[in-house]
Amino acid sequence: MAQVKPTLAKGTRDFSPVEMEKRNHIFNTLRAIFRKYGYNEIQTPSFENLSTLTGKYGEEGDRLIFKILNSGDYLAKASADLLADKNSLKLVPQISEKALRYDLTVPFARYVVMHQNDITLPFKRFQIQPVWRADRPQRGRYREFYQCDVDVVGSPSLLNEAEFVLIYHEALRALGLSDFDIKINNRKILSGIAEVIGKPELIVDMTVAIDKLDKIGLEGVNKELLERGFTDQDLTVLEPIILLSGTNTEKLEALKTVLASSSVGLAGVAELEEVFAYIAALDTTGEVLSNAVEVDITLARGLNYYTGCIFEVKTNEVQMGSIGGGGRYDDLTSMFGLKNLTGVGVSFGADRIYDVLEELGLFPEQSSATTQVLICNFEKSLERHTLPMVNRLREQGIAAEMYPEPSKLKKQMSYANGKGIPFVWLVGEEEVNTNTIAVKDMKSGEQVILDEAAAIEKIRSSLSLG
Amino acid sequence: MAQVKPTLAKGTRDFSPVEMEKRNHIFNTLRAIFRKYGYNEIQTPSFENLSTLTGKYGEEGDRLIFKILNSGDYLAKASADLLADKNSLKLVPQISEKALRYDLTVPFARYVVMHQNDITLPFKRFQIQPVWRADRPQRGRYREFYQCDVDVVGSPSLLNEAEFVLIYHEALRALGLSDFDIKINNRKILSGIAEVIGKPELIVDMTVAIDKLDKIGLEGVNKELLERGFTDQDLTVLEPIILLSGTNTEKLEALKTVLASSSVGLAGVAELEEVFAYIAALDTTGEVLSNAVEVDITLARGLNYYTGCIFEVKTNEVQMGSIGGGGRYDDLTSMFGLKNLTGVGVSFGADRIYDVLEELGLFPEQSSATTQVLICNFEKSLERHTLPMVNRLREQGIAAEMYPEPSKLKKQMSYANGKGIPFVWLVGEEEVNTNTIAVKDMKSGEQVILDEAAAIEKIRSSLSLG
Repeated sequence: MAQVKPTLAKGTRDFSPVEMEKRNHIFNTLRAIFRKYGYNEIQTPSFENLSTLTGKYGEEGDRLIFKILNSGDYLAKASADLLADKNSLKLVPQISEKALRYDLTVPFARYVVMHQNDITLPFKRFQIQPVWRADRPQRGRYREFYQCDVDVVGSPSLLNEAEFVLIYHEALRALGLSDFDIKINNRKILSGIAEVIGKPELIVDMTVAIDKLDKIGLEGVNKELLERGFTDQDLTVLEPIILLSGTNTEKLEALKTVLASSSVGLAGVAELEEVFAYIAALDTTGEVLSNAVEVDITLARGLNYYTGCIFEVKTNEVQMGSIGGGGRYDDLTSMFGLKNLTGVGVSFGADRIYDVLEELGLFPEQSSATTQVLICNFEKSLERHTLPMVNRLREQGIAAEMYPEPSKLKKQMSYANGKGIPFVWLVGEEEVNTNTIAVKDMKSGEQVILDEAAAIEKIRSSLSLG
Repeated sequence: MAQVKPTLAKGTRDFSPVEMEKRNHIFNTLRAIFRKYGYNEIQTPSFENLSTLTGKYGEEGDRLIFKILNSGDYLAKASADLLADKNSLKLVPQISEKALRYDLTVPFARYVVMHQNDITLPFKRFQIQPVWRADRPQRGRYREFYQCDVDVVGSPSLLNEAEFVLIYHEALRALGLSDFDIKINNRKILSGIAEVIGKPELIVDMTVAIDKLDKIGLEGVNKELLERGFTDQDLTVLEPIILLSGTNTEKLEALKTVLASSSVGLAGVAELEEVFAYIAALDTTGEVLSNAVEVDITLARGLNYYTGCIFEVKTNEVQMGSIGGGGRYDDLTSMFGLKNLTGVGVSFGADRIYDVLEELGLFPEQSSATTQVLICNFEKSLERHTLPMVNRLREQGIAAEMYPEPSKLKKQMSYANGKGIPFVWLVGEEEVNTNTIAVKDMKSGEQVILDEAAAIEKIRSSLSLG
């Protein structure tokens, strides 16, 4: 059999040790913070019944779901007519009954409905798992990527919204980011605006257009609004709203005036005020409210989905799309027959956050996930002296290994370098005879002769275990 | 649209918070130990090119691989004849070019070959990821389950084998198991035995038969050996080998006598002796060698794959198949054209270990992954007093939450119980006025009145943070 040079499936990636460590750094940081706020982890299976997923993501989404071919004689019951017509689309449900997870939201809704008798509401969960999409792969877009979602269902309290703002703030700070905006809006404010203009039926057109302010500017937005059925007179009303500026408090005051005639609009403003009051009560430094949160009424993200607050997070340190977003939805589980369960949640864009931290050099410089000490192997006869050393290092909780066979020093050093091992212990005949260790710091190149206790202490203190 | 009650795809499971925590307890324990021995984590994609996987697991394995249907008009280029014949088997490669990971070994081999220029040999990696098999689901057998593999490639040293024994020992001890056998054998010993009998060509038949000693007893083994082409005379030679007893040293001495005429057999014995010498040098307590390792020449596991040492781990505390196994293979990457790269590795059966720990009650009793303190919500007017408390708890690294809306105390208590929250802080009007907290221990039911500093201290000490 001729051997073919192996390749990765299109749009997928291997994660080598260094990448794994960086990704785990992000996930572990997020996990710890989610837990501190009372969120528990769950996982759902990688594939679901096809019927669970189809019809939930629109026509385009359905197309991008990876379907799994039935096992065995999958064509046995397939319609001969569809096969003869090569009708790919209609044949799918006859030869595939399972599909790969497309996002974490629909499986979570399925989970909540199936476990409604075991879980205590409000149910606060987070979930960090890969999802798969048959998108055309391109730079930064993969067919397998991780999503990272935090949601609570069954609690209408706006305290949840406030805590998501704090979670974003604490998480991004913990990852080393310092300049970012947590943008917040409310679907009810958008409804109120459409109502005030007298075109509530055009709310989607309106938000789709003003959502593009960043990209196409006011002129572009106005042009699009006119195309979508708004009049010049409407633009006169909308313009000051779109260009709303000032502090959050000033924006909310201005909105109250504009939305005076819309009870839904005023309810939206009141919700944001309550969220801000909760943030102020929780964050006694005032830091979050004054620096990180920004009312942005052009923010619309998946409008047909969200019913209350809407969030989006952007970093100002790197050119990058949003690194997170979310909001409140009142109808998540109704797709599976469980009505009136309110939920609110946010997600973190792990791949983008990875790229941001990489670009800013914010990953921890010293690796804690790799071997800390390599003991060189000069000759087999010395192993009985050095092997117990390896063991004693490990007993101290220090990741240690001996080069597994006697080999040229250069090769062993290049092994240490390749693996990012910070310290090499050189224990040759002379060191054995004098009961010492030559400890080489691989970064500085410095080498010192120490006894074992001092050598261990040096490693411990470099790891802050001391 | 009629809503269908959602179900899980056959053979898959959700992992609720409690199960996630238990599984993470196993994985985190293993991860920490793998790292301490110098192994780094990698991950490979969930799906591979179909051609990477087919032909690697035998005909039965190929059948059990989950294939992913091509996206778009997948029938366009399919053969009309195969479609008309409903030839499911031959159509697969025409409508599917990707498949779900079936194990971690083949993707690892693919990884090593593709990254051979970036990795420094010896390459020590571990990998903990789900795999998928289209098996008929049954009790304890799932279509999605985790594998947990540790391997080193590019090092012939038997120090690696010795360290895998220590890894097994340390990991199972860390998980709370106390009575288990790490069985060890060597392919070369099996070859030697077949050689001594004069039937080297029957080595597979021999090992398949004697591997069943546990299940069918000596009589059954003998019967099978006769059926498989051995003579009564052969049985006379084999019997004392199969029934070999005594200490490991005694067994190896006996084998040296039996295998005196077989150089390959003697080489196998010498390898085990060297592994034991390495274990003795590393484990100065002698505990591992005297209590945990057992030479078992009936052990054969995937003989055609392993070329040197073979491992298998069994617990004696619970009725359960092997909870781990592995060995040395000399030909892992040749399937992808990279020859002469030796490797050795072991795997942990995470699902079985989970069941064992569950049955023995060995999972940590106190949850560290859930909220530690719930602050009750009596009325909205008190929130401004209690919310900063939540914040101060979190600043101490304590997972804390306030019940998000004022609600009946009974409901809040049942929330705490459902979530396994160990402490509830009751802060009503009286407590606010006296600046105190009623701290309720949910396990003992005991309730004490403390000031905030003492209340935090109580939580910290219960978490051993104090």
